[in-house]
Amino acid sequence: MIDQTSVLIRDELRDSIEWLSHYGKTPSGGVRRLLYDSAWRKAQHALAEKWKHMGFSVRFDDVGNLFGRVQGRGTDKQVILTGSHIDTVIDGGKYDGAYGILASMVAVSRLLRKYGTPERSIEVVSLCEEEGSRFPLSFWGSGNLTGKYRPDLAGHIVDSEGISLLKAMQDAGFGLGKYSQPERRDIACFLETHIEQGMTMENRHQVWAPVSYIVGQRRFTITLTGASNHAGTTPMDSRRDTLAAAARMIAGVSRDAAEMTNGLVATVGRIEAEPNTVNVIPGRCRFSLDIRHHQQSVIDQFSHKLNRFFKKTAEQCHVNIQMDQWMDVSPIRLDPQLLALNMKLAEKAGLPCKQMVSGAGHDAQIFGTYCPTALMFVPSHRGISHAPEEFTRPEDLATGVGMLMKLLYQLAWTSEKSGKRVIHNGEKSI
Amino acid sequence: MIDQTSVLIRDELRDSIEWLSHYGKTPSGGVRRLLYDSAWRKAQHALAEKWKHMGFSVRFDDVGNLFGRVQGRGTDKQVILTGSHIDTVIDGGKYDGAYGILASMVAVSRLLRKYGTPERSIEVVSLCEEEGSRFPLSFWGSGNLTGKYRPDLAGHIVDSEGISLLKAMQDAGFGLGKYSQPERRDIACFLETHIEQGMTMENRHQVWAPVSYIVGQRRFTITLTGASNHAGTTPMDSRRDTLAAAARMIAGVSRDAAEMTNGLVATVGRIEAEPNTVNVIPGRCRFSLDIRHHQQSVIDQFSHKLNRFFKKTAEQCHVNIQMDQWMDVSPIRLDPQLLALNMKLAEKAGLPCKQMVSGAGHDAQIFGTYCPTALMFVPSHRGISHAPEEFTRPEDLATGVGMLMKLLYQLAWTSEKSGKRVIHNGEKSI
Repeated sequence: MIDQTSVLIRDELRDSIEWLSHYGKTPSGGVRRLLYDSAWRKAQHALAEKWKHMGFSVRFDDVGNLFGRVQGRGTDKQVILTGSHIDTVIDGGKYDGAYGILASMVAVSRLLRKYGTPERSIEVVSLCEEEGSRFPLSFWGSGNLTGKYRPDLAGHIVDSEGISLLKAMQDAGFGLGKYSQPERRDIACFLETHIEQGMTMENRHQVWAPVSYIVGQRRFTITLTGASNHAGTTPMDSRRDTLAAAARMIAGVSRDAAEMTNGLVATVGRIEAEPNTVNVIPGRCRFSLDIRHHQQSVIDQFSHKLNRFFKKTAEQCHVNIQMDQWMDVSPIRLDPQLLALNMKLAEKAGLPCKQMVSGAGHDAQIFGTYCPTALMFVPSHRGISHAPEEFTRPEDLATGVGMLMKLLYQLAWTSEKSGKRVIHNGEKSI
Repeated sequence: MIDQTSVLIRDELRDSIEWLSHYGKTPSGGVRRLLYDSAWRKAQHALAEKWKHMGFSVRFDDVGNLFGRVQGRGTDKQVILTGSHIDTVIDGGKYDGAYGILASMVAVSRLLRKYGTPERSIEVVSLCEEEGSRFPLSFWGSGNLTGKYRPDLAGHIVDSEGISLLKAMQDAGFGLGKYSQPERRDIACFLETHIEQGMTMENRHQVWAPVSYIVGQRRFTITLTGASNHAGTTPMDSRRDTLAAAARMIAGVSRDAAEMTNGLVATVGRIEAEPNTVNVIPGRCRFSLDIRHHQQSVIDQFSHKLNRFFKKTAEQCHVNIQMDQWMDVSPIRLDPQLLALNMKLAEKAGLPCKQMVSGAGHDAQIFGTYCPTALMFVPSHRGISHAPEEFTRPEDLATGVGMLMKLLYQLAWTSEKSGKRVIHNGEKSI
């Protein structure tokens, strides 16, 4: 089925990616589509037009999520939702988010042309926001759709120019009651296809992967206070050097995380020392800590271990320590039945396939606690993401579409048990 | 001799320090006198006036060093020079530099009143610049006096506002050939009294200390280049994390320096990571390294040890390393005979006394390779320096003046062998 048309799919995908990337194209060759800005509006409306021509029944909801519906012939009111987000980071790539929308569009339109009206209804979705690049919140699209965000929140959130989320939304024509409320209760399952944003698949020469878990994330800011003193006149044993203390802690983080060998990652990405002068001992140092794993207990244990190690090190270095935890997102297990179905489909297609854990956050993690959810990856060349250099080979994009077509066919066109069981009640099956 | 007048000296010193601190007083209670600025000019001219009233023969040289001379009755043309620098850091204290000038002024005027014309000529000096706070060079006063700076340099050095050193000097009335050229060939010895700028003396309850060495300093900038990658999707064993590598290096610096227990100090005061974002592995990190000791061989060995350790660590962490050495100042041994004389005078006065190594730079280090030089310290409360909170107890200031009077008396008023021998040819005696 798929193999014969893979060249056509590859070209259609490549062209669609190029087409959508023109909405918000940056001088560096990247894309900038921030929630409700001019490029974002043009992109959503252009998609709406395209989908109408493809025969989808198109509508927005009141936060700007865009849906392209293909009505099923059956009696089931539940909908198979497939897509991703339209927004980008400030100077992002062409693939992050966009690929999941366009892959869904191509897959559904091709299946429709080939097999006619499906048994079950499908909606392609272009979610309004995931990245958190304009407003200090993320998952605005999936969060509203799943009822996790309340509408009155929009008045309280402002961007860096002081514009409220509500004002921005209304300027874009949403939040005025003109469209239906975003919360849905008719979602049977959510399918998201995305670039990996890492190097694991490319290193393994793997072209497609179903995702088993999205990692949980815990973030801290660690502040050390000691004494700023003269670098020449303060003996080593009289120092309260916060950077020396931080260095021991950070070296410990990377050593301990590497020793775990269970997929845990821990990162110190940000550091600031004061006064940050060559000849003064830093009396204050602040650094970030980001810990991720797909099992809550592993994150808990590692956090506690570091907490003890940091406190002991601070004591030994005669500095005070404050550890502020400001993010704690639980790991998400994606739907095991959809995962098993994906593995089976890959095996059938003769595709070498290994499940993956997603180290990055995705809309799928919001849907993951709401309905059966599947997340599928294609490789990211050199792992580059959130940058103009983001790239995935057109043939890999095509493979991702092909696999999504197989999954959609199983779920919406056949009446096979495996498909029906998975999405039967729209209830989370884990 | 000194004990009876110590209360008067204490009060005179305290008042003089307060008086001079009004030239350039900052809102925070500190002092800002940058080379050739308005406060600097007023301070130098106010000192000149004061010294005239004290009976000194006053003159400037062509870079703005101020001299107050007391002509000796003898035939020796060589001059005993005593003083320090008039400039401060941007928001400095009242004591750094100023104390050495005012201590010399009070000591010489009191000796003159008490013992009349000395055998040998003495000049109190207010050196124009030591701190390097306005222009990117330091020791402009002592460097010109000892012939280490060449006059044509002034046209090539600019301050942060683009004003050249030459222009600033000329605006202040110097550098125009109006005064004598700064280079001197008639200096028998240089005596500098200064605050310690460290906590060693206060911790030891020591109120006065002759200095044996000024440490050498070697400074480096270390730049590490790795790869900026996603904190969630990059496994620990695929990272080229420059901050993790820097942390291992910095932790090693403080550990190895502490293990030396020979007075060596090593400091990483400055660090910068890029992109310095919580969820991105830092692909670039840069930090400073400052190593100080009073023996060149110790600095050499420690630098080589760190160099090997850094390279090995960079290799283990899969990052590239560049080490740029941009400062290498040799240690200075102060004149052993003047030091011995100072120790003898302290013993005679019943003053508990232990030699010190200076971890900070001073004009004495420029004179140290040019003529017999003595450097003497009084304590700094809590080691604070280069800050408005800089403080030394008036009684300690008085002790410093008393000891300087004893030394000057030996060198200039008596014909004792010990004094004459030390300064006989104005040649460096180490």
